[in-house]
Amino acid sequence: MSPFAIISAVIERLKVASDAAEQLKDITGEVNGALRKLGASGGICQVFVPHTTAGLVVNENADPDVCIDMLTWLEEVVPQSHPFRHAEGNSPAHIKATLVGQSATLPLDGGRLALGTWQGIFLAEFDGPRQRTVIVNVVGA
Amino acid sequence: MSPFAIISAVIERLKVASDAAEQLKDITGEVNGALRKLGASGGICQVFVPHTTAGLVVNENADPDVCIDMLTWLEEVVPQSHPFRHAEGNSPAHIKATLVGQSATLPLDGGRLALGTWQGIFLAEFDGPRQRTVIVNVVGA
Amino acid sequence: MSPFAIISAVIERLKVASDAAEQLKDITGEVNGALRKLGASGGICQVFVPHTTAGLVVNENADPDVCIDMLTWLEEVVPQSHPFRHAEGNSPAHIKATLVGQSATLPLDGGRLALGTWQGIFLAEFDGPRQRTVIVNVVGA
Repeated sequence: MSPFAIISAVIERLKVASDAAEQLKDITGEVNGALRKLGASGGICQVFVPHTTAGLVVNENADPDVCIDMLTWLEEVVPQSHPFRHAEGNSPAHIKATLVGQSATLPLDGGRLALGTWQGIFLAEFDGPRQRTVIVNVVGA
Repeated sequence: MSPFAIISAVIERLKVASDAAEQLKDITGEVNGALRKLGASGGICQVFVPHTTAGLVVNENADPDVCIDMLTWLEEVVPQSHPFRHAEGNSPAHIKATLVGQSATLPLDGGRLALGTWQGIFLAEFDGPRQRTVIVNVVGA
Repeated sequence: MSPFAIISAVIERLKVASDAAEQLKDITGEVNGALRKLGASGGICQVFVPHTTAGLVVNENADPDVCIDMLTWLEEVVPQSHPFRHAEGNSPAHIKATLVGQSATLPLDGGRLALGTWQGIFLAEFDGPRQRTVIVNVVGA
């Protein structure tokens, strides 16, 4: 890309429905769809969930067992049975969301996400099923 | 925003005093204040702590019990009593800072942080009380 | 920096060889070298690993014991002996990579990374030794 390209900031909101109480739902296709619409070639693509009991994971989307292992491990280390104070009873979901994070920043190169061969983008639902919003925010050219 | 707007990069350093050995201190107001001064409409707002025993959490700022539960859980899983090697004795603080992260990236939309209804930005102090620096760095238009 | 500077998006791929099964390898010098080549003064420097069993840690690079303590703690909390489903047997590496994250976003100020005195950037290898790619992606001016 020319260093003199005009950089723009564009934003798009996606609606994603999770299907279970806890789920890693592959949204790579949805993010790519938003990117095609937004039209940037290089820059940073930020994916963000404006929620406190959901997050984003960037990890293997080839073998679904990787996602199952991750959710199983998180459940063991942040058990629902733990005596938390928060009256809504979903403190484990808040903690898991913070552990994986609410924002995934991804490099753009030649109009595409510069993801590795095995990487996918997952909405990490920890208190579903729910309708969630996923923000795709691009600063690029 | 017009895709032809001129994008700028602006940076501001905030001083934030933590009040306890461990604390999630809500700094959403301070970040919004820096943003008003920096003046961007769209783009990415990055909040960054240049420290190794503090981090940033984006999570619920309605019920304070969510923060208490998070700090309690972190203390259980990374106990101070663990026999670590680091001679300063604050390895748990370093580990907790890495688990929550030092950088929070937040989308800007219409001149405001596109946070969810329940989301706030917290300085995560794990080795306080101290005077901390919080960098607000905006690439936007 | 002038708010009217022309912002560019530039990207560079580094090759980094890890030396052990698990390692925090300091790559701050390599990232700074890429930055000098890319030439930005302000903005956001994103470091990204396009892998699913490696990540990035920003933490203390003064006392090597901090890194040892972090790897030791991660091994205890995500033990290799755990009965995971993923047939390749490296689910702990996937989980650890997600816990530390694949993307580190760093502020640029005056042509330099605005890191704290004690902060360094580490490639977090959890399934090595391997040849890894580290992407340095800058949106700045």
